[in-house]
Amino acid sequence: MFISKEVQPSATLKFSQKAREKVAGGETIYSLGLGEPDFNPPSLLIDKVYEAAKAGFNKYGNSMGLDSLRLHIANKLQKENDILCEKDDICITFGAKQALIIALMAVLQPGDEVINISPCYVSYIPQVKIAEPKAVIKNIDLSPGDFSLDFEALKSAVSAKTKCIILNSPNNPTGKVFSRAEYDLLIGLVKDSKIYLISDEIYEYLNFGNVPMVSPGAYKEVAESVFTINGFSKAFGMTGWRIGYMTVPKDQRRNIGTLVQHMNTNVTSFVQKGLEGVYDIDRSFLVDYNDHLRRMAEHITDELNAAGLQVVKPQGGLFCFVNISAKGLKSDDFATLLLEKQNVAVTPGIAFGANWDDYVRISFAGKEEEIRLGIEGIRNFVL
Amino acid sequence: MFISKEVQPSATLKFSQKAREKVAGGETIYSLGLGEPDFNPPSLLIDKVYEAAKAGFNKYGNSMGLDSLRLHIANKLQKENDILCEKDDICITFGAKQALIIALMAVLQPGDEVINISPCYVSYIPQVKIAEPKAVIKNIDLSPGDFSLDFEALKSAVSAKTKCIILNSPNNPTGKVFSRAEYDLLIGLVKDSKIYLISDEIYEYLNFGNVPMVSPGAYKEVAESVFTINGFSKAFGMTGWRIGYMTVPKDQRRNIGTLVQHMNTNVTSFVQKGLEGVYDIDRSFLVDYNDHLRRMAEHITDELNAAGLQVVKPQGGLFCFVNISAKGLKSDDFATLLLEKQNVAVTPGIAFGANWDDYVRISFAGKEEEIRLGIEGIRNFVL
Repeated sequence: MFISKEVQPSATLKFSQKAREKVAGGETIYSLGLGEPDFNPPSLLIDKVYEAAKAGFNKYGNSMGLDSLRLHIANKLQKENDILCEKDDICITFGAKQALIIALMAVLQPGDEVINISPCYVSYIPQVKIAEPKAVIKNIDLSPGDFSLDFEALKSAVSAKTKCIILNSPNNPTGKVFSRAEYDLLIGLVKDSKIYLISDEIYEYLNFGNVPMVSPGAYKEVAESVFTINGFSKAFGMTGWRIGYMTVPKDQRRNIGTLVQHMNTNVTSFVQKGLEGVYDIDRSFLVDYNDHLRRMAEHITDELNAAGLQVVKPQGGLFCFVNISAKGLKSDDFATLLLEKQNVAVTPGIAFGANWDDYVRISFAGKEEEIRLGIEGIRNFVL
Repeated sequence: MFISKEVQPSATLKFSQKAREKVAGGETIYSLGLGEPDFNPPSLLIDKVYEAAKAGFNKYGNSMGLDSLRLHIANKLQKENDILCEKDDICITFGAKQALIIALMAVLQPGDEVINISPCYVSYIPQVKIAEPKAVIKNIDLSPGDFSLDFEALKSAVSAKTKCIILNSPNNPTGKVFSRAEYDLLIGLVKDSKIYLISDEIYEYLNFGNVPMVSPGAYKEVAESVFTINGFSKAFGMTGWRIGYMTVPKDQRRNIGTLVQHMNTNVTSFVQKGLEGVYDIDRSFLVDYNDHLRRMAEHITDELNAAGLQVVKPQGGLFCFVNISAKGLKSDDFATLLLEKQNVAVTPGIAFGANWDDYVRISFAGKEEEIRLGIEGIRNFVL
């Protein structure tokens, strides 16, 4: 395939390399870069996965996923997300990331337009260009004031060539959770079109503001053109396990089925078997973790606003997206100097979209002490 | 992406569906269709994987793979396959299948020619067309007499547009193991070109004839243009685990690194950790399994030759590729009628290449009793 210049390694790598060098040199680094919860998967799930391997779930399986897990997911989506679906609508993938790229591979044709909401997860744009090198990406910026959906911009971006819109709520990197009112406008716009909505809901269970989670797949008018994408990484502390899933619109079932067959054969059999009851386990640890996220989000917002930066308080996810223009540095320079002088690692805004060079992303996924010290370092840096 | 007509679901699905219906109806099916060993992974490996998860190897890791496992694989390739490589040349993937498609995605440009040796694994052609819809596939048939490489055909297929040659030895579906003499000719042909060799060596440890395994990556003249692809599925009874790997030519390291970053993030962390010493475990069970394969290969060859079919005795892998022209049926009809009348499931030759409609593939991966009864059913069918 033609690998375009838009398919680049993640911009965050440069910083982790520098940070590693500092750690190797004996220094302490306050890492506010990482997008993964610091708790481990519930040991019950680890045990169930082990039991599945011992019981012989080590062989080839259905390319679309283990039936019991697909049924469990379909039930969850019906009950919690109001999405009308059944087992055969679900495809299990190696992480939500793989669900995304396979959905894009299935729907995109050369010349198709993709509407992408910016700033966005670092892999969306490379994934579009890997899935279809001749796809055209139209980036729509969130409103800088509160990261709400700019409906007018969205409306003028839609054309007869629009094949899909990529959505992500709770949002990385802004912490925004799209409201029902925002979705109402969006759905009204696309409901009579053939535009697919690719809805990345991986941060669903990390939602600590007062905005209820809405899945666009719940809107009956568009239900047959939504890929609802999710996984277990962020909620269950298993980012490295790589188990995700998507709902597959019926007109894409054959394409997706063929792609996963020739790309995956199946997703790790014994891990799927071990997770077949994942949504039934006690999830009270998520209440505690969301409480941690809420407190950290408030702390960061208060501290950095007081230091003269502009912070919109996040409503969900693991990140604050902070306007650093008061410091008069571009995001890459800000992050580089911050790491050099204060040993604090953050991610430059430019990694999330060309128009976001006045921002840095700060993760509060990790330990409170490290976050507090990291924020102190940022205050020292900007004051 | 444009999904061409060559990207089809596997032809074997139709038969497994029919077989399932018969089983549901209370009938016994003799399955000679499946390409997976019937033993489970060594329990030591299952335990190590469990320990890794308990020890916290559940987080994001290096997209190219866990360093300790990459080093272990590089050592194995050096010692056993005479391939000069180091840790950084290795990329861990979700199965050898994914290594293959990612290698193809990295190297193929529109208009490039791919030389494919036919008959071949059912996914090669779809994978080429997924990786690059505008790639041109030139199929070269193995010699029907003994499934040897037809060097003259290969030579005339090579052009200035040839980007890569896909090789698979021990071979699925023929059971052929390419000899050093065959590789000598092949390497002589490509050594001064920029043609990549994509060498699928997944059946390496299932080699029970008298032909020693040769890896094309061992030839110094072409070492920098070989993707050596392998995995643990077939040798360690873990087909469902989906852990494979490839050596990456230095000029493709950036492409491959970028692709796995945006497609996988990483391969399941705790499974990689659990496998970091996989080649050090006691492999005597493979001696027994190869003995089983040798006996079954001989049994099938003798019985079906005696029944008037033409069988070339396999040297490795899990399959016999049997010429059924004496029966006067095309492969799909043969397989359909055989299943209907004798409850024996085999795979039609047409699934492995357009010119192989006079063949069926018979797997001897499974239990001796089932294989013997299945072969008896085939004899009853043809006699």
